[in-house]
Amino acid sequence: MSPDPKTESFMALAIAQAKAAAQRGEVPVGAVLIHQRRVIACAGNRTLELHDPTAHAEILVIREACQQANSQRLPDFDLYVTLEPCTMCAAAISFARIRRLYIAAEDAKAGAVLNGARFYDQPNCHHAPEIYSGIGESEASRLLKSFFQKRRNVPPDCL
Amino acid sequence: MSPDPKTESFMALAIAQAKAAAQRGEVPVGAVLIHQRRVIACAGNRTLELHDPTAHAEILVIREACQQANSQRLPDFDLYVTLEPCTMCAAAISFARIRRLYIAAEDAKAGAVLNGARFYDQPNCHHAPEIYSGIGESEASRLLKSFFQKRRNVPPDCL
Repeated sequence: MSPDPKTESFMALAIAQAKAAAQRGEVPVGAVLIHQRRVIACAGNRTLELHDPTAHAEILVIREACQQANSQRLPDFDLYVTLEPCTMCAAAISFARIRRLYIAAEDAKAGAVLNGARFYDQPNCHHAPEIYSGIGESEASRLLKSFFQKRRNVPPDCL
Repeated sequence: MSPDPKTESFMALAIAQAKAAAQRGEVPVGAVLIHQRRVIACAGNRTLELHDPTAHAEILVIREACQQANSQRLPDFDLYVTLEPCTMCAAAISFARIRRLYIAAEDAKAGAVLNGARFYDQPNCHHAPEIYSGIGESEASRLLKSFFQKRRNVPPDCL
């Protein structure tokens, strides 16, 4: 499915970030950016903590790697993310010229890569990464389901 | 067209931000966020300067206002932007729960509000702002056309 033998271990790091996000009360999504088989940046969602609706895991690792690279483009970078990116993140991934995108679980509701807007298939998309999906899917999905199940059982004013 | 009599003056501020962006060599787009008729944040594109592909004018003002508000949601805020938001920014505007979106010029190529993905019309969009377009359109368009005209006349290795 993927040309990179380290795929599973990189996705495991992203899943660890998703778990850490859940422990902080954030939606459990994690992302890792790889360059030449080295981990350059990893993050989980931090929208609540940072008071920033753009602080999705993908945006955080892209911004961090761009700072390290002194560039707004990351053409030889591969992104591992535990949930299919939303429209905002799909566009940011394209703007950053990410080379490959590895997705664990699909997101039929808010995903914009394999579902919904299918951003990379649109005629106005200037750059589409190579896409690989399904690596670590069961664990990433389980984390999300468990998180939302627990949240539904908490009175809304405690969230 | 708009319920707010200050609309033109707020858009003039956004256009001033777009002009300043052009002087820095950035794509000339500006944005202003308003709360209770007060300017809370204003910015022009800074993707080159900040080495950040997400540093569009809209994202910068949303992030700044969220810091001030200590919240990832800005439900009573109105956003003025000189160019129709792209897919990334349209989604961020929705996530932030912006109330009203004032657009100067449409963007037939990369816009995602009135063109392209028409993000706010999609079934998976949880929040759509009220949209008003055309205020300050001619000046905002002129700025962009002039910027790209000059850029085409510069050898690519000087950009």
